Amino acid sequence: MHGGLFTPRPEDAIHARIEGWCEAVRARDVESIAAYYAPGILAFDAVSSLRFEGLDANTQHWRDCLASGEGEMIFEVRDIAVTAGVDLAFAHFLNRSGRRDGDGWEDAVWLRVTLGYRKHLGQWLIVHEHVSVPFDLDSHEALIDLHP
Amino acid sequence: MHGGLFTPRPEDAIHARIEGWCEAVRARDVESIAAYYAPGILAFDAVSSLRFEGLDANTQHWRDCLASGEGEMIFEVRDIAVTAGVDLAFAHFLNRSGRRDGDGWEDAVWLRVTLGYRKHLGQWLIVHEHVSVPFDLDSHEALIDLHP
Repeated sequence: MHGGLFTPRPEDAIHARIEGWCEAVRARDVESIAAYYAPGILAFDAVSSLRFEGLDANTQHWRDCLASGEGEMIFEVRDIAVTAGVDLAFAHFLNRSGRRDGDGWEDAVWLRVTLGYRKHLGQWLIVHEHVSVPFDLDSHEALIDLHP
Repeated sequence: MHGGLFTPRPEDAIHARIEGWCEAVRARDVESIAAYYAPGILAFDAVSSLRFEGLDANTQHWRDCLASGEGEMIFEVRDIAVTAGVDLAFAHFLNRSGRRDGDGWEDAVWLRVTLGYRKHLGQWLIVHEHVSVPFDLDSHEALIDLHP
């Protein structure tokens, strides 16, 4: 019985944080999503702008993204790799993100995600996020149909 | 006089590594570029594929990228932020990448870059790289004309 004294390995803690973050996104719960980020978050997102600086801008961008498109959220991850130390860590994985309508029709894209974490007052928070798809060098089109 | 006993702060070491990596790219020196990466590098690059796994695939992709396009290399960075511990670190920055022809005409794109490092046998090596531009959600076009 270790109870509250048990501290998970940093790698396990980060895996759990990613899982919780995914659940918050699938629930479209913007407040819960925002709680995974540090105040100084600098995000490079897949759409719209070069960067989103600070928690307010990042949260508003999440709100905008969740508001666009109807249906059930698809937000699945695979191939998670975590590199973790005592108080900083980074993780990368692939993320299938999109919507599922009432007939089960899915509209989703495979994204690449990198998250940078710092541990602050015992809590792992995302200080940097990078989400993207690659583009085609000739057509300049985003490659939204790639599969792992 | 500290000579060889002087060990730079991890943050300073990472800044120096990024500078050296940029110089190797501007020199189109593929062997020098490859020496900045760990054997197990997993790269999410701005173009072509979802991911490049391992040093051979990553080096071949660098070779392909450097071979396309003529003229002097443009490879400048700004707004570098480094988060570093004893033996792991991550950094993010913006990177203007392209070519300059003999008349001084520049064809370049602002990219977002995230690098994940591990220190192995005293050497900081890139174990993860993520480079991208965002895309437009309506047109699906890569946003290659954005400026910081």
